[in-house]
Amino acid sequence: MKSPAVVLLSGGLDSATVLAIARDAGYACHALSIDYGQRHAAELAAAARLAASLGAVEHRVIRLGLGDFGGSALTDASIAVPEAPTEGIPVTYVPARNTVMLALALAWAEVLGARDIFIGVNAVDYSGYPDCRPEFIEAFERMANLATRAGVEGTRLVIHAPLQHLSKAGIIRRGTALGVDYGQTVSCYQADEAGHACGVCDACRLRRQGFAQAGIADPTVYRKSHT
Amino acid sequence: MKSPAVVLLSGGLDSATVLAIARDAGYACHALSIDYGQRHAAELAAAARLAASLGAVEHRVIRLGLGDFGGSALTDASIAVPEAPTEGIPVTYVPARNTVMLALALAWAEVLGARDIFIGVNAVDYSGYPDCRPEFIEAFERMANLATRAGVEGTRLVIHAPLQHLSKAGIIRRGTALGVDYGQTVSCYQADEAGHACGVCDACRLRRQGFAQAGIADPTVYRKSHT
Repeated sequence: MKSPAVVLLSGGLDSATVLAIARDAGYACHALSIDYGQRHAAELAAAARLAASLGAVEHRVIRLGLGDFGGSALTDASIAVPEAPTEGIPVTYVPARNTVMLALALAWAEVLGARDIFIGVNAVDYSGYPDCRPEFIEAFERMANLATRAGVEGTRLVIHAPLQHLSKAGIIRRGTALGVDYGQTVSCYQADEAGHACGVCDACRLRRQGFAQAGIADPTVYRKSHT
Repeated sequence: MKSPAVVLLSGGLDSATVLAIARDAGYACHALSIDYGQRHAAELAAAARLAASLGAVEHRVIRLGLGDFGGSALTDASIAVPEAPTEGIPVTYVPARNTVMLALALAWAEVLGARDIFIGVNAVDYSGYPDCRPEFIEAFERMANLATRAGVEGTRLVIHAPLQHLSKAGIIRRGTALGVDYGQTVSCYQADEAGHACGVCDACRLRRQGFAQAGIADPTVYRKSHT
């Protein structure tokens, strides 16, 4: 029997690749999406399609009114999504997002008796987002082992971040080898209802560059092209 | 100007005491309740009353479908609340609850620019719940400092658990000295809509004993008395 794992699945390129990696490693994947009030709801529709096409055992969406807190361009309509690279922590950073998502994954893992949680943080992201750094993932894992029955009963919980040291191009190559259909994924911070990408936000820029560097055709429909 | 702090407020005896302690320490208290699908919704009504009477700057309730995961007598109607003490981790344990609540508090703290988070875990609880142990709180604080802007920008975030080493009687004495009206709090795992306590669950038993040991009159309305 396959071991259960909880896989955080946003519907983007990274988490789709992680789901393919977890399945390839032999886990029975329980995909978890968080509807934290994000602008790009097209991602959630993408997540449902990807969970099905990448063989997840089940897919759950947890609604969470994180947008009520404000503070991010991704959940607060009064903050504009930047259309050019910025310095420091981007305004698209959602406060404590990975902490909240991993905490919810941990809750579900405990109920399922799963000892493995997968998340798609990567080297490109952790230049700007504090909760994408390897030392954050390690500290979360340590905390998780103290927080749960696992910690009391001596079974070790592992947070897997298999993209951590990969570039966007490396992620795309890996996922393509595992059969991910990137046409089903949505990365854009301001995708329209059909899932079509703006072509100019940070996420579109990194995605486009990634496909170019990987030498793989980009299946994304962009509304605008780069100038 | 007072420093802002996020105070987790369930509406129970412990978190009401924590709110009084945080206010007494001079913080501008932003009270946060999580509606995680708990059976005892009377607690949320109590939280709103307490936030007002204990001078919180604001009170927010975040809805979270944690009950969808099941696995706890507090969120899963198919698991009975025990009416006598049990061995080991109680079935009323909500998986990863304190991790999830602290993660949400962390998100709000980051938006507010608050460096202080208060939670009402205590010595009585950590005999049974893994996420009430001091080593869990320490590990969460360490992780939180890596997860957020604070970690990047060098301001230190502190998780305060001022009840950690207090008995229930000690908590009641402390809160009474600070003017907490415990008649406004609801501890019972199966309180009715009016907030009246069952009188026989673990939470009622500990509460009743606490008042008796503190030598303070118990304002709670119990539906059943102990046999």
